[in-house]
Amino acid sequence: MGEVNTNNNDEQQPKEYNISPVIGEWFSEISPMWPGEAHSLKVEKLLFEGKSEYQKVMVFESLTYGKVLVLDGAIQQTERDGCAYREMITHLPLCSIQTPKTVLVVGGGTGGVLREVARHPSVNRVDICEIDGMVIDVAKRFFSEVAVWYEDPRVVLRVCDGSAFVKAVPHGTYDAIIVDSSDPIGPAKPLFEEAFLESIAKALRPGGVVCMQAESMWLHMHMIQDVFTKCKQIFKGGCVNYAWTTVPTYPSGVIGFILCSTYGPVPVDFKHPINPLADQSDGDDDRDNQPLQFYNTQIHSAAFCLPTFAKNLSI
Amino acid sequence: MGEVNTNNNDEQQPKEYNISPVIGEWFSEISPMWPGEAHSLKVEKLLFEGKSEYQKVMVFESLTYGKVLVLDGAIQQTERDGCAYREMITHLPLCSIQTPKTVLVVGGGTGGVLREVARHPSVNRVDICEIDGMVIDVAKRFFSEVAVWYEDPRVVLRVCDGSAFVKAVPHGTYDAIIVDSSDPIGPAKPLFEEAFLESIAKALRPGGVVCMQAESMWLHMHMIQDVFTKCKQIFKGGCVNYAWTTVPTYPSGVIGFILCSTYGPVPVDFKHPINPLADQSDGDDDRDNQPLQFYNTQIHSAAFCLPTFAKNLSI
Repeated sequence: MGEVNTNNNDEQQPKEYNISPVIGEWFSEISPMWPGEAHSLKVEKLLFEGKSEYQKVMVFESLTYGKVLVLDGAIQQTERDGCAYREMITHLPLCSIQTPKTVLVVGGGTGGVLREVARHPSVNRVDICEIDGMVIDVAKRFFSEVAVWYEDPRVVLRVCDGSAFVKAVPHGTYDAIIVDSSDPIGPAKPLFEEAFLESIAKALRPGGVVCMQAESMWLHMHMIQDVFTKCKQIFKGGCVNYAWTTVPTYPSGVIGFILCSTYGPVPVDFKHPINPLADQSDGDDDRDNQPLQFYNTQIHSAAFCLPTFAKNLSI
Repeated sequence: MGEVNTNNNDEQQPKEYNISPVIGEWFSEISPMWPGEAHSLKVEKLLFEGKSEYQKVMVFESLTYGKVLVLDGAIQQTERDGCAYREMITHLPLCSIQTPKTVLVVGGGTGGVLREVARHPSVNRVDICEIDGMVIDVAKRFFSEVAVWYEDPRVVLRVCDGSAFVKAVPHGTYDAIIVDSSDPIGPAKPLFEEAFLESIAKALRPGGVVCMQAESMWLHMHMIQDVFTKCKQIFKGGCVNYAWTTVPTYPSGVIGFILCSTYGPVPVDFKHPINPLADQSDGDDDRDNQPLQFYNTQIHSAAFCLPTFAKNLSI
């Protein structure tokens, strides 16, 4: 793993990677996925740069958002606003069904989703398939408060291709699947395709739920509409919804989720959660002691209210 | 008024202002109000630069957000996402009371709020106090589709200090007041202070409502909490709420509003609007023909659902 301990001094950075989008004191997020705009964070210290088999990995300490994880030039997580993403992508599905027991996380190498799944006392098994071992190593090292739940005995970690894993899973294995992917132009591309969505539907029990990272309604409505339409065909008899939340360091400041349920004995109503999270701030386990920062039952339901321009995604 | 017709060529820009934050092909929004981060838009063509008595004014054509208005280096409005701000700051208060008739707009020189107030057929008078005539001129010239309602016979425009105007208004004059201000570090500073809030309360009829631009819960929670606490003292017997919406080109991607009502015969419940907007897309007046792009009744109520970290602003 490549590493630098330089404080933004270009001369000292490892030449072999030549990947740093840090220019002077600023990191700028520029991508063909959001042409014409860039969000920049002031860099206090570059902590890590490396190139895995799949992508470029970078961590820096920012002036005002704490530590920041970047994959292929796109911000994945910051210490300051990561709560909004990881709490919503996890509790939107898990609070919508009674007593979730078996959960699959596809992607999610940062450990943020694991950290939130662990708040649900009914869960007795969490499988996680992260394709990139470097992401896990970096998360454990630089984001240890979030990535602490890899050590939980309920967690089974596989460093593997999540789409191949899901395809091979026996039908009806999981109560819930969370697809915590990066954007669909890198290693996460297969996770937005029809074959993967069909595998997901088969891997869920009747009345099971999936929540997938599904980009920004301000930037990628055509892509969202395309995946949404596929889901409506695949999850026949269940329900398909779109929800969104605010994450300042993601492009356009928002990120969305597609939530689907399979047909089952108990219809799922994502908009009216039936499994509220208890206040765990007095828990005995030290790892439980950090209270929720973003999610609550009111914001769960509100997340499904869409602007008029996105109303095709409402039911 | 200074003006340029250059396409991003520094040499051709008027030297006397020396204000352009356009570097190369990009405009970057950098401010002590949001240290450590910047949002940048790619510039197609710089359309206007000027310095009024109050602030620096700039308009450019961006690659992906249409035309952009910038005051003192801060983005005020873009053609692509301006709908979210102007529809929410207007309809959150006006849809919360029956048959609003008299409305005051403080600030709002872009004409965006006027454009939305005009959708309410019960309104028979709109006073608007914009301190900076250059903003009005620039809005009419470069954002004519939004600023068209200055010509409405119900509108009385005053180029004046809104805080002085409100102080002199007879008690109980308005059903609703909308404070469409820029950030509190330029000419809008008095609009966040106690004396102005007290004038607003007196200028409203019993059961009247005010909606004020109130910054981002991600960036300015201390300032929001301070103004919120003042409002709770001043609007005794009425109600005080905080709501928020997504606007990609504002810092952190969100902007919030403080809504207050004065004590009156009909208690106001902002979270459950009683005055829905009819679908006006078939209206006879050409100016009415653009349907709402963002606001609807569901997103009205959802806007009051706050993340856990902001729960002190919930009632």
